[in-house]
Order: sequence, then C-alpha cells, then structure tokens
Amino acid sequence: MENRNRQVLLKRRPTGAPTPADFEITDAPPPDPGDGEVLVRGIYLSLDPYMRGRISGQRSYARPVEVGAVMEGRVVGQVARSHDPDFREGDYVLGGFGWQLYSAVPGAGLLKLDPAAAPLSAALVKRAGARVVGIAGGADKCHWVEAELGFDTCIDHRSADLEAALDQACPNGIDVYWENVGGAVQQAVFPRLNDFARMVMCGMVAEYNDVAPRPGPNLMSAVRKRLKIQGFIVGDRWQRFAEYRAMAAPLLRSGELKYREDIVDGLDRAPEAFIGLLQGRNFGKLIVTLADDPTRQV
Amino acid sequence: MENRNRQVLLKRRPTGAPTPADFEITDAPPPDPGDGEVLVRGIYLSLDPYMRGRISGQRSYARPVEVGAVMEGRVVGQVARSHDPDFREGDYVLGGFGWQLYSAVPGAGLLKLDPAAAPLSAALVKRAGARVVGIAGGADKCHWVEAELGFDTCIDHRSADLEAALDQACPNGIDVYWENVGGAVQQAVFPRLNDFARMVMCGMVAEYNDVAPRPGPNLMSAVRKRLKIQGFIVGDRWQRFAEYRAMAAPLLRSGELKYREDIVDGLDRAPEAFIGLLQGRNFGKLIVTLADDPTRQV
Repeated sequence: MENRNRQVLLKRRPTGAPTPADFEITDAPPPDPGDGEVLVRGIYLSLDPYMRGRISGQRSYARPVEVGAVMEGRVVGQVARSHDPDFREGDYVLGGFGWQLYSAVPGAGLLKLDPAAAPLSAALVKRAGARVVGIAGGADKCHWVEAELGFDTCIDHRSADLEAALDQACPNGIDVYWENVGGAVQQAVFPRLNDFARMVMCGMVAEYNDVAPRPGPNLMSAVRKRLKIQGFIVGDRWQRFAEYRAMAAPLLRSGELKYREDIVDGLDRAPEAFIGLLQGRNFGKLIVTLADDPTRQV
Repeated sequence: MENRNRQVLLKRRPTGAPTPADFEITDAPPPDPGDGEVLVRGIYLSLDPYMRGRISGQRSYARPVEVGAVMEGRVVGQVARSHDPDFREGDYVLGGFGWQLYSAVPGAGLLKLDPAAAPLSAALVKRAGARVVGIAGGADKCHWVEAELGFDTCIDHRSADLEAALDQACPNGIDVYWENVGGAVQQAVFPRLNDFARMVMCGMVAEYNDVAPRPGPNLMSAVRKRLKIQGFIVGDRWQRFAEYRAMAAPLLRSGELKYREDIVDGLDRAPEAFIGLLQGRNFGKLIVTLADDPTRQV
C-alpha cells in the first residue's frame, strides 16, 4: 500500500462547461479505517454525466459536492484492510468511494462483487435495453450501435437535419423515447411522439453545462397525445441492483448483453476525461483506472 | 316539434380568441331519421374548452370541425321519434349532437339517461375530485370553492403574486397537480412539485387561444424529481362512463358530490358563452338550454 492518497477535489463551481482549473489534484495521508470500517483501494472509477449536477450547487435529488471536497463517484475496489468481520482483505467491492485512490468506509452498505460472474468493470455498465432506433454522436458510434449492438438503425444527432433523419428512421412516429440527452434531440423527438407514447427520462446530458435552463416543450401535446412522461434516478432502485446483476451477468458472459468501455488510465486524467464526457468525446462507458485490476488478463 | 332546426355553424377558423363573427346561426329543415336512427330534440348543450381545439384546424386527437359544419358538442336530449326498437319517444339520451336543436343519429352508441338517478344536466358535470388546494379566477369563485366545495383553501390565479400565494398555500410543496389550465398557473406550480410528484394533465385552457405554442417547462426536473406526467382525454374512457354514473349519482343525491351549473338560455347565445368560457367568465359548468327540461321543477 502506498503511503499517500491521491485525490481530485472540487476547487470551484464551474459556470458552463467545466475546465481543468475547476479541479485540484492533491495528495493526502491514506485514511485509517475505524471500527466496522474497511480500507478500500480503488481499481475502477466510473465517470458519469450526473456528476455535472453534483458540482453545480443547485438544488437536486442529491447533496452537492462541497467546494474543497473530494469529487463523488462510484468505484470498484478491493479491500486492503478490514475492521468489519463480513469483509476480508482481497474482497472486491462496489461503493461511492469518490475520485481518490483510497477510502475508509463502513462495511455496511458495501456491495461485494464476484469477479467470476463478470468482469469487474462491468459492474459500472449501463444496460442499453432493447431499443430499435439509436441516436448517437458521430459516424463511428452509429456504426458500432448498428453493427455491434444490433439496432435497426442509428441516427447521428450531429447530422445536418436531425428531423428529416428521424422521419426517415421512424416513419410511423415514436412510441417509446428513452431520454438521456435533452437539447436538440429532445426538440426533434418530442413532436414525433405518437398517441399514448411513453417518455422515460433518465437524464439530459446535452444541457448539463447550461447556465440557465432552456425552455422545454409545450405540454399541451401531453394531453392531446395522452403521453406518459416518467423521470427516474437509478439510485432509487439500488435495492434491485442484486436482481439486475443476477439477470445481467449470464447475458454478459454469453455475449447477448453487449457493452463498450472507454478506459482512461490514472486518476490524474479524471478531470479531462469528465470534461470530454460532457461533450460526448468518450466512446463507451467512461472508466478511470485507479490501480491494476488483479482479475484482468493483459 | 318545430319545423326548423336552428344550428350554429363554424363560419371561419378563429385566430387567437374567437369572436361572434367566427360563428353563423342558421335555420335548416329538421333532419329525418333513417332506419335504426332516432330523432333527438336537444335540451342541454355542454360548452367546454376542448372545442377551441376542434375549431383550430390543427392536428389533434380528434378530427377538427370543418368550416361550414355544425359546431360539435355533447347534448342531453329527448327522443322525438325513433326508428330503433331500443328507444322510445320520450327517452332521455346523451350524445354528441352538436350545437343544434335537432339531430338524427343511430340509436347504437346513444347513452340512455335515467332522470330519476340525477338531474339531467348533471350528466355533463365534471367531478372535481378530492383536491385540497384549489386554484380559481376571482374572489367569488375562490369563496365558493372554499365554502361550498370544502377545499382547504383556494388561490385566486389573478392575484398579484401567484407564486407567493402558492408558497403560502403549499408550504411543503405539491404532490399531485391536476393540470387543467396551463399558462401562468403551470409556470408557478411546476417548480413547486415535490419529488415523485404526479401531474395529471387534462387540459391547458389558458393557452387555447394562443396563436403559437408557448415554451414549456424544462423537463430536467422531471428526472431530478422523478415526476410522472400523464395526459388523458375523457373520451378514451367512455366505456367506464356507466361505472362513473353508478358511483356518482348517489353522491349527487346525497349532496356529497357538489357541482355548480352556469346555465345560458338559448342556442343563439352559445357563441358568446363559449367566447366567455375561454376567458373564465362562466361560474360553474357551462350549459346552454336548447329546450325546456320536462323533468326540471321551475
């Protein structure tokens, strides 16, 4: 174990797109686990768009990251020392350990991972689901969505005429819209929703850097078309995560459930990777390696 | 039976607020019921905000009223002549007979009314439901909502500071919002919705005269707060209307279910009453009498 704990702190709240100057990389002494706590050495850090909301300071579903505090994030790690009888040195765990190499956390609430069930980093992968028409940024991603994920087609939202592309891909309108991006895509999709369409709202990453919220769609069409619009936060469903893993792990092993990782090496590159994530520069689930993964074959 | 059928036709599509010049009142020969049809003499015509959408010509959940055609509307009437064995002269029926005194319609699809169950005109009343905080336009309506309907409080949406009034009436935010008005009320309510709040969308009458749709609320809060927004149209649920009547009629008789009618006398006044409806000038469910109600005590 190293005798320093590298950390990325929030230095100041960004206005608009975050810049490297909004973060500070420091070394702190490694934490000492108390009674019932374990010391976790991070292996994989998941970077996700929701973090933009956490550092904005605005009212949200979760407490914001304080200025000067360690950036929040979910991490797959390994128990380096345990003061909790339920965990042994070497156990793999998942938890909100943040953008740092080490953390001391209560054993209660930690999720133990079985490296035989699926690759460790896959615990951070979001399942794409059974969508038929994908929307992605750039020709490479669209090609991958069609060729690898098997979508019927994929629209490049950077294309000149998103509305015409949608009309072509969805000549009979849209019955279910998985909303994860907002912005121009939402503006183009919303008028194309069918009667009784459902809009599942998971995020609106294209707008996370906005300084002021953009106007949304006029909701009269929700009446006219009897739309159902439902927002959700994955954290409300943690109690079902074990159920999801039991369902997904065999699908991952068989190759039926596909995913792609964009792995960035080293905590120091986390701010830059996060800034790129908000611009769609990653290609796959963005993960930062904090240490070597003992289960991974090179 | 009179030998003329007075009708209100759509003369032209209004831009913005309708004016009397958008309607034409004419006399036509009374229709002759064909095989399986009945001749209905109208008694009560229901005027409702949705009619603004029907005359706009824009795409909606229902076919628009054509220019030159009889205005659409639901009517309680009495069978004057029957060529359908299921109906006898004198039966009371409910149907979409339009803004006219007589109509010949197929008996199939007509709803027979029992005048002993509830006053005939009550078949057109919308149930207010179990809301605690009401929003109405003007002090008189607010007083009635509080004193007669028994709401905990009622906010005058014409008050100087709607947002402050909402904060006072709903200090812990809003869990369920029955959306029937849109406009400034929606703008004030939406940011005050609580986590997991539900927004039932029935209409947005304050915006029906708009020439172009206003921007709506930014939907990111639907994610943050896990809102459920559900639009509906009463016509999708006609198959449950009998169930509703069976439930509501005894409540009306016992006085538990309260309603108020704003009755305008005579078909010729329908255009003016409809124009006022869109400005909130009615006080209660707006109904136009087409003929004397034989069941009503004067």
